[in-house]
Amino acid sequence: MISFTCDYSEGAHPKILERLAATNYEQLPGYGVDHYCESAKAKIRAACQAPEAEVFFLVGGTQTNSTVIAAMLRDYEGVVSAETGHIGVHEAGAVEYTGHKVLTIPGHQGKIDPAELRAYLVAATTDPNYEHMVFPGMVYISFPSEYGTLYTRAELEEIQAIAAEFSLPLFIDGARLGYGLASPACEVSLPELARLCDVFYIGGTKVGCFCGEAVVFPRGNAPKHFYTITKQHGAMMAKGRLLGIQFDTLFTDGLYFEISRHAIDMALRLKDLLKEKGCTFFLDSPTNQQFIVLENSRLEEFGKHVAYDPWDRVDDSHTAIRLATSWATPPEHLEELRRWL
Amino acid sequence: MISFTCDYSEGAHPKILERLAATNYEQLPGYGVDHYCESAKAKIRAACQAPEAEVFFLVGGTQTNSTVIAAMLRDYEGVVSAETGHIGVHEAGAVEYTGHKVLTIPGHQGKIDPAELRAYLVAATTDPNYEHMVFPGMVYISFPSEYGTLYTRAELEEIQAIAAEFSLPLFIDGARLGYGLASPACEVSLPELARLCDVFYIGGTKVGCFCGEAVVFPRGNAPKHFYTITKQHGAMMAKGRLLGIQFDTLFTDGLYFEISRHAIDMALRLKDLLKEKGCTFFLDSPTNQQFIVLENSRLEEFGKHVAYDPWDRVDDSHTAIRLATSWATPPEHLEELRRWL
Amino acid sequence: MISFTCDYSEGAHPKILERLAATNYEQLPGYGVDHYCESAKAKIRAACQAPEAEVFFLVGGTQTNSTVIAAMLRDYEGVVSAETGHIGVHEAGAVEYTGHKVLTIPGHQGKIDPAELRAYLVAATTDPNYEHMVFPGMVYISFPSEYGTLYTRAELEEIQAIAAEFSLPLFIDGARLGYGLASPACEVSLPELARLCDVFYIGGTKVGCFCGEAVVFPRGNAPKHFYTITKQHGAMMAKGRLLGIQFDTLFTDGLYFEISRHAIDMALRLKDLLKEKGCTFFLDSPTNQQFIVLENSRLEEFGKHVAYDPWDRVDDSHTAIRLATSWATPPEHLEELRRWL
Amino acid sequence: MISFTCDYSEGAHPKILERLAATNYEQLPGYGVDHYCESAKAKIRAACQAPEAEVFFLVGGTQTNSTVIAAMLRDYEGVVSAETGHIGVHEAGAVEYTGHKVLTIPGHQGKIDPAELRAYLVAATTDPNYEHMVFPGMVYISFPSEYGTLYTRAELEEIQAIAAEFSLPLFIDGARLGYGLASPACEVSLPELARLCDVFYIGGTKVGCFCGEAVVFPRGNAPKHFYTITKQHGAMMAKGRLLGIQFDTLFTDGLYFEISRHAIDMALRLKDLLKEKGCTFFLDSPTNQQFIVLENSRLEEFGKHVAYDPWDRVDDSHTAIRLATSWATPPEHLEELRRWL
Repeated sequence: MISFTCDYSEGAHPKILERLAATNYEQLPGYGVDHYCESAKAKIRAACQAPEAEVFFLVGGTQTNSTVIAAMLRDYEGVVSAETGHIGVHEAGAVEYTGHKVLTIPGHQGKIDPAELRAYLVAATTDPNYEHMVFPGMVYISFPSEYGTLYTRAELEEIQAIAAEFSLPLFIDGARLGYGLASPACEVSLPELARLCDVFYIGGTKVGCFCGEAVVFPRGNAPKHFYTITKQHGAMMAKGRLLGIQFDTLFTDGLYFEISRHAIDMALRLKDLLKEKGCTFFLDSPTNQQFIVLENSRLEEFGKHVAYDPWDRVDDSHTAIRLATSWATPPEHLEELRRWL
Repeated sequence: MISFTCDYSEGAHPKILERLAATNYEQLPGYGVDHYCESAKAKIRAACQAPEAEVFFLVGGTQTNSTVIAAMLRDYEGVVSAETGHIGVHEAGAVEYTGHKVLTIPGHQGKIDPAELRAYLVAATTDPNYEHMVFPGMVYISFPSEYGTLYTRAELEEIQAIAAEFSLPLFIDGARLGYGLASPACEVSLPELARLCDVFYIGGTKVGCFCGEAVVFPRGNAPKHFYTITKQHGAMMAKGRLLGIQFDTLFTDGLYFEISRHAIDMALRLKDLLKEKGCTFFLDSPTNQQFIVLENSRLEEFGKHVAYDPWDRVDDSHTAIRLATSWATPPEHLEELRRWL
Repeated sequence: MISFTCDYSEGAHPKILERLAATNYEQLPGYGVDHYCESAKAKIRAACQAPEAEVFFLVGGTQTNSTVIAAMLRDYEGVVSAETGHIGVHEAGAVEYTGHKVLTIPGHQGKIDPAELRAYLVAATTDPNYEHMVFPGMVYISFPSEYGTLYTRAELEEIQAIAAEFSLPLFIDGARLGYGLASPACEVSLPELARLCDVFYIGGTKVGCFCGEAVVFPRGNAPKHFYTITKQHGAMMAKGRLLGIQFDTLFTDGLYFEISRHAIDMALRLKDLLKEKGCTFFLDSPTNQQFIVLENSRLEEFGKHVAYDPWDRVDDSHTAIRLATSWATPPEHLEELRRWL
Repeated sequence: MISFTCDYSEGAHPKILERLAATNYEQLPGYGVDHYCESAKAKIRAACQAPEAEVFFLVGGTQTNSTVIAAMLRDYEGVVSAETGHIGVHEAGAVEYTGHKVLTIPGHQGKIDPAELRAYLVAATTDPNYEHMVFPGMVYISFPSEYGTLYTRAELEEIQAIAAEFSLPLFIDGARLGYGLASPACEVSLPELARLCDVFYIGGTKVGCFCGEAVVFPRGNAPKHFYTITKQHGAMMAKGRLLGIQFDTLFTDGLYFEISRHAIDMALRLKDLLKEKGCTFFLDSPTNQQFIVLENSRLEEFGKHVAYDPWDRVDDSHTAIRLATSWATPPEHLEELRRWL
């Protein structure tokens, strides 16, 4: 059975496997200070056109979110997020576990609205009970969002300006960053994105790695002793080489961008196919996650042939489902899918 | 330059690399519920002769320690450990970060003394200020210890009985478990060890894996919703396959034990070599970590040829260093080492 | 200038002052184990008709909320509350600081709707991603609510039944409990309230004490070692006598109920006065907090004579304000208020 | 039966009771912004000769310690303390509950040794594994110590210099500060003490108040938003007047110093009495806590007449006990004690 459930169904890009094998017996120091990590960091700095950037390799998305957020917030601060933000919904309370509240504002197909963000921050900081409330300490957005949508350049600039106005760092969750950047609808490049925020990460888990997220502080603005903080959060890998080699491979000869484009190519073909088949779209996503509405009566049969992610209840007889492509999606899977739609 | 710095200097066992490559395009569900994880768990249960055991795969040692400890303690409890225990020294306060105190008793070459443990627990639980103090809520030991030493069977039984007397779970940190079990000095088997504690883990990071620790609750006694707890701690890997495939390989045809024996064979040859060279031992370790005392004046030259781990200051002119073998140590490295001792 | 700002503007009931003075030189043990605490607990058990109840004295409301919630939740659980609940809004993130998420559902003039609670719990516990989300672990309501409103008996019974259906404890924040019970609109007595929940507290700070909240576990169901937990939270008063004597006084000869009735009498007269003056009510509250809407243009002058609590922005030209009575409100203050309305 | 158990056996100084009564019906704002709090703060600044000082009123000692420590440490830092420090022993893990480790060095009759402190800090900050360990982030001492002993001026200066050398704030726990300052053995005044540290508190609970600790940041160096931090820790009293009025009374006409001197006068007479009776001293304390060694065979009979605090087991047949005087100790109690020694 083919699966469009998610973008982490397969292992790692074959070039990564090759590199892991080729370097296997090289003796390297642990904890991320080996030369592959150094090389990967240099390549990421170059790709971001951010020579001052500090880069850290962590293992997974939830871990990265809670570690970065806890490291950048003061104890009495919370993080502002769309109510659909991954940190507030599907991370089992990992942010709260570190003592911080997720302060939610409305999500619009996964995105926050700059005007609503500003209104929220104005209200929060002028509330007469301000000092008895959680202070907004950071703005969190996902690019692409959990619904596959992308912020426009203007929106990003506006959010950045608002965050700056309130002296808040802007954090971009880039678990699927590659799939955002590779979309024809994307209005920003990686270097531009790096300039538009205070910290972001380049997701590896969903874009060709076995695991790994590269956290980038683009202006050398990492919190003091962030290295030790990752250790404290259980987010430091002993064999840091596993992360270094993977990211070094991804950022050699533009592999990261190349495989991201493949996922988007497949997604656009998927979208065409879904249109062709007359499917109702749940929303219009320009990235690798596509959402359609199916009649519940069709789900069982469809699910026998195609694994999918049940996304949301639409009404008593309809369900929104997610179909995702990835770096690994073969064209044949689309052909197979065509048979069952 | 050769390195005896630690047991995580190389990548992964070649059979693991092979299996990762062979399974790479198989589409699998995420978060540790794929069939490789299931298979690995079944093999671990079999190897432990613990059919009721619950097994979870986490990523690294510090993460595993803090997750297991936090999951098993009540908020007002601390974990009793040797003052040299890894959790109290080299984990950047990861246990305290989850709100729990590490309650220390003396370490004797890394081991706690059962009589001292009992005396501590008696004193703690009969203190007139008991209710104003941190309650002992768990006993933590490492097998082998951070100094390479092993508890005898009698010691383990005594510690287990004492823990039970005070209704405390006994947690065995098995980051280097294989190297303990493979030592000729080891008095217990894996099934026996599983019976002697309430939770332990089978370290993969230091025994042939890229990463991964298999937490075993031998009597199906995992804390409620431990799965979600791992997510909350950022310890759940999205591509759980990476852990499942590695452990499935390690527990196929006894590979885990075979490669552990290799490390011990190399360690015993290393020990003979050190004796032959007239080295002063810092302590007598029966496992893969060997500790010798070198004159400071020799360290610089030695360090040009052999990477080692500086362990402890002995006096103004001497330093204890650690030399570790692993599953990957080639005999030629011992020959090379011989030249520089 | 008179103040209707809140119900904690004055010191303590004169009988409390008398008792503090009369017992001042009696030497008593610390930490809440003196005979006044014991006596107060016995009287509270009697007033609740709950002979099995366990009673603890804590210092303030936010502290009590975060201590009780943290003590009753498992690490991976959150507390369900109206989005207007005090714990989620005006406690500076004290609950999150202990690692727990406040899970919000709509508030209706401060109250949760039983049907919405049930729908939320059904959705949460049947979500396919359930194990990646924060588990509901407790239901929190305030009685009276932060808006002065009261749950009907039927609503309380329904909420209790729903909580029980999902095996969740029901926690009632009774910071203003006396003012709820004394309202003519109140459908439950203290013993009934004690039967309708798993833990609640009898607020002292707002009802005649300098400080102090009496936490009641009505069926002897306090979390293990709750005493030590209060110490760990900095919520145990060294001179426990201060709390014991205050509550012993309040629960002698029904003083708590008597002074609560006074506040309600004053509130009802206030309400009549506001009606008489043609004020627009923001909502209809049957307890000691009354909410009216004033034109912004009137606020400055009014505020010169009467201190009030600005509650909410209604529109560009109107503000909702709160006027609160208390055990200490003298009738003359109402007459004075009449002049300025 | 008379009690020398502790220094918090009685209520509050009668002048405090008077002031509470006299101000009882004055309507004041909550949360510590009333004019009594302001007045008390001004008097404390004057008494400390620290016009820039920021002063905050918290409720109790454990709460104050954990709040101040958490507020001043970064997440990855711990607090250095004597192993006998109150924060590490009798506070139920309140510091760890906020995520921070208590880093212990030897205690010498309750005091840390400056040379040992420095050696510890040198070792910690030069350890090759520094970045995998908890960073020392603050130095905590008690004045007087938990054993009644006092640091000399030279020791305080040395500790301050060492803390400054390592850029660590020095925190002085002054739960019994008055009893230290009033001792003839004390070498520093309150203004001097304020200059010798970065934060300290003036204990009220043990020196004449019902409750309350005045935290002083002598150079206006309070952590940002410390007010909100106290709320988050459940350490902000709604009726802040209770604390303001008490401290305002204590710092009017030198009452704090006067009643502290009384306690010390009583302690010196107690000490003379104990010497006269040939008691063995456990240690030589110049403050209000005196420690003697009694034969276990005498304890039962003695305990029938005099309440005392069992302090420590000396040997199989001897126990060290604590006898404490306070602001409230009447001379007659000493006479009564004489009968039973």
